[in-house]
Amino acid sequence: MTKKQMRVGLVGSGYMGKAHAIAYRNAMAAFAIPQDQLHCEMLADATPELAKTKALELGFNRSTGDWKSLISDADIDVVDICAPNFLHKEIALAAIAAGKHVYSEKPLALNADDAKEMTEAAEKAGVKTLVGFNYIKNPTVQFAKQLIARGDIGEVVHFRGVFNEDYLADANLPFSWRLQKEFAGTGALNDLASHLVQLAIHLVAPITSLCADLKIVHQHRPLSQTSDDSKAGVGEVENDDQAHMMVRFANGAQGTLEASRIAWGRKNGLSFEITGTKGSLIFDQETLSELSLYIAEGNPQTQGFKRILVGPEHPDYQAFCVSAGHGLGFNDMKAVEIRDLFQGVVNNAPLWPDFRAATQVNIVLDSVVESVDKRAWVEVEQYDGDHR
Amino acid sequence: MTKKQMRVGLVGSGYMGKAHAIAYRNAMAAFAIPQDQLHCEMLADATPELAKTKALELGFNRSTGDWKSLISDADIDVVDICAPNFLHKEIALAAIAAGKHVYSEKPLALNADDAKEMTEAAEKAGVKTLVGFNYIKNPTVQFAKQLIARGDIGEVVHFRGVFNEDYLADANLPFSWRLQKEFAGTGALNDLASHLVQLAIHLVAPITSLCADLKIVHQHRPLSQTSDDSKAGVGEVENDDQAHMMVRFANGAQGTLEASRIAWGRKNGLSFEITGTKGSLIFDQETLSELSLYIAEGNPQTQGFKRILVGPEHPDYQAFCVSAGHGLGFNDMKAVEIRDLFQGVVNNAPLWPDFRAATQVNIVLDSVVESVDKRAWVEVEQYDGDHR
Amino acid sequence: MTKKQMRVGLVGSGYMGKAHAIAYRNAMAAFAIPQDQLHCEMLADATPELAKTKALELGFNRSTGDWKSLISDADIDVVDICAPNFLHKEIALAAIAAGKHVYSEKPLALNADDAKEMTEAAEKAGVKTLVGFNYIKNPTVQFAKQLIARGDIGEVVHFRGVFNEDYLADANLPFSWRLQKEFAGTGALNDLASHLVQLAIHLVAPITSLCADLKIVHQHRPLSQTSDDSKAGVGEVENDDQAHMMVRFANGAQGTLEASRIAWGRKNGLSFEITGTKGSLIFDQETLSELSLYIAEGNPQTQGFKRILVGPEHPDYQAFCVSAGHGLGFNDMKAVEIRDLFQGVVNNAPLWPDFRAATQVNIVLDSVVESVDKRAWVEVEQYDGDHR
Amino acid sequence: MTKKQMRVGLVGSGYMGKAHAIAYRNAMAAFAIPQDQLHCEMLADATPELAKTKALELGFNRSTGDWKSLISDADIDVVDICAPNFLHKEIALAAIAAGKHVYSEKPLALNADDAKEMTEAAEKAGVKTLVGFNYIKNPTVQFAKQLIARGDIGEVVHFRGVFNEDYLADANLPFSWRLQKEFAGTGALNDLASHLVQLAIHLVAPITSLCADLKIVHQHRPLSQTSDDSKAGVGEVENDDQAHMMVRFANGAQGTLEASRIAWGRKNGLSFEITGTKGSLIFDQETLSELSLYIAEGNPQTQGFKRILVGPEHPDYQAFCVSAGHGLGFNDMKAVEIRDLFQGVVNNAPLWPDFRAATQVNIVLDSVVESVDKRAWVEVEQYDGDHR
Repeated sequence: MTKKQMRVGLVGSGYMGKAHAIAYRNAMAAFAIPQDQLHCEMLADATPELAKTKALELGFNRSTGDWKSLISDADIDVVDICAPNFLHKEIALAAIAAGKHVYSEKPLALNADDAKEMTEAAEKAGVKTLVGFNYIKNPTVQFAKQLIARGDIGEVVHFRGVFNEDYLADANLPFSWRLQKEFAGTGALNDLASHLVQLAIHLVAPITSLCADLKIVHQHRPLSQTSDDSKAGVGEVENDDQAHMMVRFANGAQGTLEASRIAWGRKNGLSFEITGTKGSLIFDQETLSELSLYIAEGNPQTQGFKRILVGPEHPDYQAFCVSAGHGLGFNDMKAVEIRDLFQGVVNNAPLWPDFRAATQVNIVLDSVVESVDKRAWVEVEQYDGDHR
Repeated sequence: MTKKQMRVGLVGSGYMGKAHAIAYRNAMAAFAIPQDQLHCEMLADATPELAKTKALELGFNRSTGDWKSLISDADIDVVDICAPNFLHKEIALAAIAAGKHVYSEKPLALNADDAKEMTEAAEKAGVKTLVGFNYIKNPTVQFAKQLIARGDIGEVVHFRGVFNEDYLADANLPFSWRLQKEFAGTGALNDLASHLVQLAIHLVAPITSLCADLKIVHQHRPLSQTSDDSKAGVGEVENDDQAHMMVRFANGAQGTLEASRIAWGRKNGLSFEITGTKGSLIFDQETLSELSLYIAEGNPQTQGFKRILVGPEHPDYQAFCVSAGHGLGFNDMKAVEIRDLFQGVVNNAPLWPDFRAATQVNIVLDSVVESVDKRAWVEVEQYDGDHR
Repeated sequence: MTKKQMRVGLVGSGYMGKAHAIAYRNAMAAFAIPQDQLHCEMLADATPELAKTKALELGFNRSTGDWKSLISDADIDVVDICAPNFLHKEIALAAIAAGKHVYSEKPLALNADDAKEMTEAAEKAGVKTLVGFNYIKNPTVQFAKQLIARGDIGEVVHFRGVFNEDYLADANLPFSWRLQKEFAGTGALNDLASHLVQLAIHLVAPITSLCADLKIVHQHRPLSQTSDDSKAGVGEVENDDQAHMMVRFANGAQGTLEASRIAWGRKNGLSFEITGTKGSLIFDQETLSELSLYIAEGNPQTQGFKRILVGPEHPDYQAFCVSAGHGLGFNDMKAVEIRDLFQGVVNNAPLWPDFRAATQVNIVLDSVVESVDKRAWVEVEQYDGDHR
Repeated sequence: MTKKQMRVGLVGSGYMGKAHAIAYRNAMAAFAIPQDQLHCEMLADATPELAKTKALELGFNRSTGDWKSLISDADIDVVDICAPNFLHKEIALAAIAAGKHVYSEKPLALNADDAKEMTEAAEKAGVKTLVGFNYIKNPTVQFAKQLIARGDIGEVVHFRGVFNEDYLADANLPFSWRLQKEFAGTGALNDLASHLVQLAIHLVAPITSLCADLKIVHQHRPLSQTSDDSKAGVGEVENDDQAHMMVRFANGAQGTLEASRIAWGRKNGLSFEITGTKGSLIFDQETLSELSLYIAEGNPQTQGFKRILVGPEHPDYQAFCVSAGHGLGFNDMKAVEIRDLFQGVVNNAPLWPDFRAATQVNIVLDSVVESVDKRAWVEVEQYDGDHR
């Protein structure tokens, strides 16, 4: 009897596709996944030539210029979607229809209705789903969850999350699909704040109401970097550069979430501070292997935020290194995600965050848009009953 | 001909009273204010005995148990109000009526109507006024203002301000006047967020609209630290432990402001990050003598946040020390404020923030309450025409 | 015609062996090394059973309980030595005799004489050698080298290096081979300071003289963790817990280097600060993806240490991620080393640091011992003529 | 009966003179020193005109252009020496001869012999002495001493101290008395490392042996900033830009101390890390109001360096502020020193560090020079029997 395998078909080989390719290998060595059970089987990209080149570079056995043929391939168990956001739905629904498990990058869909449709299709088909909110798999973030779950900081009363980057801070960067609602949906909200929403729900409780503000700061951008400044050469930006939310959680806690794609100097500026009745914790993704923890106990003279370097005592770290403080990287978080995917597909372990959990994120994002339209607080629909 | 003098009458000798006493002396030595032009003349406190003891300790020539006699004293030029918030109005109006200049701690009043009444009385009487928003006088913050004013970070597009402390984080701390609307007004909003509002207006632009959220987390507190837990021994907290605002500025920029008095681990956690079209700056009061500055120019390879230690090249630092990086303290900021007060009173220099500017802060705080009631965005009245 | 291959035989599958296993895969995906050109071919460990288990876990095709059979295997191109220090010499000489390329973890040997013997054997045999001083391959450290080489901080006048960990800080940790001269050589000096020596030579210039101090702090340790405290159950520690050096470089610069294996709280505390005539730079391995840079130019008001997050503008980062600040991890540094190894073995690129360069490190370490014996400064022999 | 008074005569009104002037006033308000017991009585500087101007600025009652007349003045109780180093001895001996208490800035003398002569004169005359090693009075440093004294970090096994500044980093800064042995003694050693020596002795134990290295990096400097580069216009620097020491303490601990006056980017870069058998602590004067503390106890998962913001629970902080984390400044440390001086002079409290303790520092500095000459370790004479 042959062992059960996970044969991956990757759709899209850009930035995230490469991160996935690294992570598959990283996961195999770090988590001792047998070489004969995980296969980087096929890679699809826009043209056969590009796909072939990328497959060679990233170590996939076969390639195709047509993602549909990847999906219909009998030797694919999991379809891994790293294509642009607006294609997630079509590819996922096709994969589900073909009985494949689906692993999709976030955001799951451009809006909650699409996400629900995808969730229901997957659940009906009985395939496994996983959405790539990688930051949640960071051992440091897992440790934060552990601290909260066992009550070390008491009951959570406040969450502040910020996700700032500067990838569009230069007003002269050219217009692209990312700036159009049709292809990208919202802007910083979808790209960045979606992570905060997912982290906040996971670390605190469901978000039950919110009030939000969105703003396009750079309203026009040149159609290409070489184009002149004339009116003809300018594209109108359709989605937010900056996004704000005030939220209330199901447990009564308050929160603020904000994101920007034009915040000069912030490169991967995902940070949060969580306050409880007995202590606080602070995380900053730019120093992703440390957590600051304050516990209000003992001699006040020696109280302070403790800078804890993540190590083998913390979840999933030991797979990468036996010594504390040696530092995990961005790609290591993704390897943890792949380990989960493997356990789900091959050993039937529950997968999280699945399409249902990711749909709840899309619902919150839709509520943001609704709040902005109304200039007022709105209630948030609860879809993901299985909140952990 | 005698030189013009500033003879100070201090009302209230608690925490802030002592900080003022230190600052008067600090200012004289640091800014070379002649000994015969600034006099700590009289101190008023609740009883003659207490006032006498405190006057001796803090170096005031005379004392009184009746602040009204201080105000009517002919040898007092400035009334310095360090009494609890709810007394500001009565004392200030009396001082103004007696033709004294008034230097008041913040918040100026419990609400905007009172603040307007005080402003109009002072302006009619032609006395000088100054409100003690000390953080604004920090050389580091002055440097931030300078950077913004000369365009180093371009046009400001975002302000995030947080002012978190933990002085009421312990749920067993006893009930007090600070927790009652009648005596304190709002809670973290008045105590802490008022500073953020004033900084935001000063560093960015007038706040023109906002949406807010307030929350009392610890709803009851023991009536005294020794009281038992029975219902009879519990006071009901009437004002906010946590306060949130999303704001829009007159120049189109967006902002978020938040404050908490129950944020474990934060001791003087006043921080802000200001994003412009060409760069960003970050300040944290817990490291009050440094500013982080990011300028998007030059070789991308060597771009990053610069940690600038405040020194003699920055405003007002040289008065304290000729070498950079030696560090100013909390009380030094107050000394700068006293220097301003002296210049205003003795040399007729314009004083800022005066009652009118402080009233604008009270207006914003009132708008917060209005927004919370409406669960929606509200417009903010513009009272302080002289925005710098 | 088949492409040239690199078939690896790994000797030792403990902590570093696993790091290598991860790095081979990581390097293939990150640096687009074709799957058919790099093979994790064979793994040797103490017993056939252990080797088999580990080979499966770490993804090696074959296994053996006898490292000699690995060396004599015709399908091995490179022998990768992750065995304990005292075995490096024997294994390397055997591999060289078999005509294999050798990739050894540091320190190359227990003393300079052994290192020279190994170097001369390898050079005579014409095999490639590489020594695993992984920190040197960190993109952040490569960037530091680049800054120095192009004169951004002027002429280097000072180097301070510290490498502190706490892996033996607990005085009750049991006695082991690491604490015996015969098996480990010196202590913190060999384990930790060796990295500093190599970095200092690389980043500044050859070390020409030094004065040193070594100290055993915990002189006895229990023979095993379960043993009682009786005299019989105690082992005598033979090598240094703390090591200090003052050095002079060939270019006239001064330096201090120190290491400790008992420095509570330091987990991977490798840091250095380099001062030049025009600026300075600071690195700390516990935040391995950032460099602090001070350049003394422009307006003094805006001078400060710049915290630069490593990104695609810096050497070798882009292979891992296209966005700055996303953070590399400990294992990523090792992947860069593997990329170098592959280029050396398959494309005949020069390899560095090779046995000759590593021997120079051993010479400096021997000089430390000589200085301690003499309680005085000593001159350092220059062996590595090819200093870059 | 009149209360005992402390009437101060200040000699020298430059940088440190002003810091003292601020501190006298700061101390009076912070520590409730009665106005009628501490008087800034007379100021001496190079000319009567300069002295008069400065006395007015800094708030001294009288002035003189001749420090000898200050010393002979009957209404002076304490002579406060802020004159250049080479004058300390002459002024101090004259003051002692006149029966005055002496408060001198550090270093006490240009060499140990002079320091001994001064100490013995003072002890024979029975006058009080205090030397201005202000950093030692910082509440944060006092807290560090407290932690060590009560055993929180176990037995101290290592001290690393660095004191780097960049005040002479610019090679074009003009030649001055500071660069000449006759007037300044050694360079960075005397100016900066003297503080480290005093801290190390205080926080650990007497220094019993040492080995050192000194280096002049910029060997010539222009005779004045306007002078041309011709040979005639160049002064030869006579004392060290960089100073290193390896030391051994009486309790067996090891240490490294280093200082530089040419370390670009460091403004007040006095830092130390102290390792004990149970924990460690880290201090950096550029963030003078915080201490990092690591204690190796409890759950390893939550161990880390705790960043403790100094507050009212720590020594002498509450005099300045009742709230933690509000931050003390450089001048506040000096105020603590003045409080000590007042207690010593008026209430006959013991004063520390007195001339004898400061002489021990001079002895260590002389041993450094001896070690450099010998290129070897040297033993250090123990003069200060009263080590606390």
